[in-house]
Amino acid sequence: MMLQVIALCQAPFLLDDPNVGLVFPADTIARAKHYLSLTSGGLGAYSDSRGIPGIRKEVAEFIERRDGYPSDPELIFLTDGASKGVMQILNAIIRSDRDGILVPVPQYPLYSATISLLGGSLVPYYLEETANWGLDIVNLRQSVAQARSQGKTVRAMVIINPGNPTGQCLSEANLKEVLKFCYENNLVLLGDEVYQQNIYQDERPFISARKVLMDMGGPISKELQLVSFHTVSKGYWGECGQRGGYFEMTNVSPKTVEEIYKVASISLSPNVPGQIFLGLMVSPPKPGDISYERFVRESKGVLESLRRRAQIMTDGFNSCRNVVCNFTEGAMYSFPQIRLPPKAIEAAKKAGKVPDVFYCLKLLEATGISTVPGSGFGQKDGVFHLRTTILPAEEDMPAIMASFKKFNDDFMEQYEDYRGYSRM
Amino acid sequence: MMLQVIALCQAPFLLDDPNVGLVFPADTIARAKHYLSLTSGGLGAYSDSRGIPGIRKEVAEFIERRDGYPSDPELIFLTDGASKGVMQILNAIIRSDRDGILVPVPQYPLYSATISLLGGSLVPYYLEETANWGLDIVNLRQSVAQARSQGKTVRAMVIINPGNPTGQCLSEANLKEVLKFCYENNLVLLGDEVYQQNIYQDERPFISARKVLMDMGGPISKELQLVSFHTVSKGYWGECGQRGGYFEMTNVSPKTVEEIYKVASISLSPNVPGQIFLGLMVSPPKPGDISYERFVRESKGVLESLRRRAQIMTDGFNSCRNVVCNFTEGAMYSFPQIRLPPKAIEAAKKAGKVPDVFYCLKLLEATGISTVPGSGFGQKDGVFHLRTTILPAEEDMPAIMASFKKFNDDFMEQYEDYRGYSRM
Ligand SMILES: Cc1ncc(COP(=O)(O)O)c(C=O)c1O
Ligand SMILES: Cc1ncc(COP(=O)(O)O)c(C=O)c1O
Repeated sequence: MMLQVIALCQAPFLLDDPNVGLVFPADTIARAKHYLSLTSGGLGAYSDSRGIPGIRKEVAEFIERRDGYPSDPELIFLTDGASKGVMQILNAIIRSDRDGILVPVPQYPLYSATISLLGGSLVPYYLEETANWGLDIVNLRQSVAQARSQGKTVRAMVIINPGNPTGQCLSEANLKEVLKFCYENNLVLLGDEVYQQNIYQDERPFISARKVLMDMGGPISKELQLVSFHTVSKGYWGECGQRGGYFEMTNVSPKTVEEIYKVASISLSPNVPGQIFLGLMVSPPKPGDISYERFVRESKGVLESLRRRAQIMTDGFNSCRNVVCNFTEGAMYSFPQIRLPPKAIEAAKKAGKVPDVFYCLKLLEATGISTVPGSGFGQKDGVFHLRTTILPAEEDMPAIMASFKKFNDDFMEQYEDYRGYSRM
Repeated sequence: MMLQVIALCQAPFLLDDPNVGLVFPADTIARAKHYLSLTSGGLGAYSDSRGIPGIRKEVAEFIERRDGYPSDPELIFLTDGASKGVMQILNAIIRSDRDGILVPVPQYPLYSATISLLGGSLVPYYLEETANWGLDIVNLRQSVAQARSQGKTVRAMVIINPGNPTGQCLSEANLKEVLKFCYENNLVLLGDEVYQQNIYQDERPFISARKVLMDMGGPISKELQLVSFHTVSKGYWGECGQRGGYFEMTNVSPKTVEEIYKVASISLSPNVPGQIFLGLMVSPPKPGDISYERFVRESKGVLESLRRRAQIMTDGFNSCRNVVCNFTEGAMYSFPQIRLPPKAIEAAKKAGKVPDVFYCLKLLEATGISTVPGSGFGQKDGVFHLRTTILPAEEDMPAIMASFKKFNDDFMEQYEDYRGYSRM
């Protein structure tokens, strides 16, 4: 239904076609008319640089339904995807290379690249693999202390929840600690919550940083500056090419909001089809709508299959020699640790390759399976990972994992027994 | 047809609907299939950060047909509108506030805002109102000399052709002078050619900076760095909300191209519907296609009407007391000079307003006609303008101009006779 609504918005004259009802269901036609009525000139006109007001209102209602606290559409800006939103906000925060931004390691490279583009300083903090990739506040304190001793002003902290590449869902208790930490250290918290609809277990459902903050009450809930990001690229849609997203600002001063608006208006407006897509995402069909049953069936189908795939993949990795892998609680990735034997590391050096790159290339050559070496996301010295998505078709998954296992176990065999071989 | 193609690309499962042929013509269906085949996963997937290769090829073919010289798709990047392209290129050029960019005055504010955002220095050069808003090379030299005396390195020059807000089409001779000037001064030329399809006279057809450069031959044609911008927001489409555009680089070093690619990939990819729209714009229906006749009729209709509106508006302004206006040779704007009497300037000061803002507000109050004061675009001291688009419906135009004339002539009467009134 969603895509059909966009189709009709793109070519609104179709609404006058006598045969339109043969191709498009009635609620789809009604939704298309609704979104067209929110624009000032259909998809052919620039919108407000912050996004179409009627859609920002739908986003605010979505947030209120999700968190139980009202949200102000004036503090929601629509963007060409979450990436652009993150870049806008980091641009507002970073003034010079003395401004530090706390970023998780491993991290999604958007953050390191943008901070470097804007001339700021990345201040890394490690996620705890043994604590299911949770945040350790002692670690955080050390990172901040070290940055300060280098003359940096740490101004903001990024969390990715659910995590990319690490797949964890942060617990409410962990989020509370993080919020307190930001408050004590006067940091803006950037909450990258683009995977909030992708949850594959029931123990730790997604909870937004904003809800935890509001639940805490008191001065922190009225003072801590938080910016939360979301997108149409993930969830059960995965509509990456549309480039629709939003950010919501909490406790950000009106003057700063005004400045961010000014910068946004330089490039006129986010793309309008992406904005409508976002509207559809935050207000999906409701019980009673013609498309409701189908929507529920399809979205549940996608998420349940992803949940099964997350399980097959984690189990698959954990059955391999020298591989350990946390369960993908959310997001779309698996990030197994590969314990490379010293001989494999030596062979990589000889080949002029970083060890995890060496492993991933060998994997690609042997099996055609394409993965991203963990070094692209940052990791502790001497610890190696790879990242893969859980997106291959469910029915292909067992064969893929079997092929991986065969490669990995042979690889380990070869390099663990290397000395043995070379003795012959 | 164009919009219907996008509609089908948005909801490709419609192509399997038995009734699709009742709503969509056959060539539309074929084009939708063509564009879907160029993507790697329909509109739901990110594309190459430079844009879909097949569409970059179509852009290159369009440029070759237009200019008579081949163009390399590898040097064409698709963007979320020309604004984003300009920002990407200025970002690649500006390193500090000592880097100067020559920008026309009056100018489209994208340039001043982006240069200030990126921390560069705007070096203004005046367009010659009495020479139909042409460029005077003597002026340019002075601007550069002055910037250098202030310790700046002038690194690039912007031209807007056809002009916004000034509506001029640069002559081939003028473009040649500009290219030579850039070559002598080692400047990158940024050619904002977003209005290239909006031409309203036959004496000075649009000619691209690239074609003039190639026609010149010799070392300059192999060395001068040129970046040209185009968009789906203008022309006879005016599809502003789609945010589709491209830039083409000429004589830019592979290393720089690589860097620009790297920065583009931070935000993954331009929006895919906008890319397809751009493809449709650069390869419109051809003779023999079902939609060809209709396309020609509609696009000609739009442009001819704009041409008549440009004439009505220029004539209307020139019939007003103390108003002089160059003909809108291209683009979508009229930029009349308003010769404000000293008493009007005094009254504006008393009201705490910039004189042209004062005039435009009075105009808005009296007639409902909304215009942009010239000071928003920059102008010489003590010279006042307003900018208006030529986009009101043709049939409304005579009444609008009559209403403007009445307001203006009353205004002039009041402030020219001010002393008279106050003597009573
Ligand atoms: C953690 C994270 N944040 C942001 C993004 C960017 O999403 P968008 O497509 O909305 O720009 C991604 C995309 O993969 C992501 O993984
Ligand atoms: C001179 C000029 N350049 C660039 C643009 C930006 O166009 P786009 O919509 O492609 O970002 C405009 C829009 O009005 C313009 O007038």
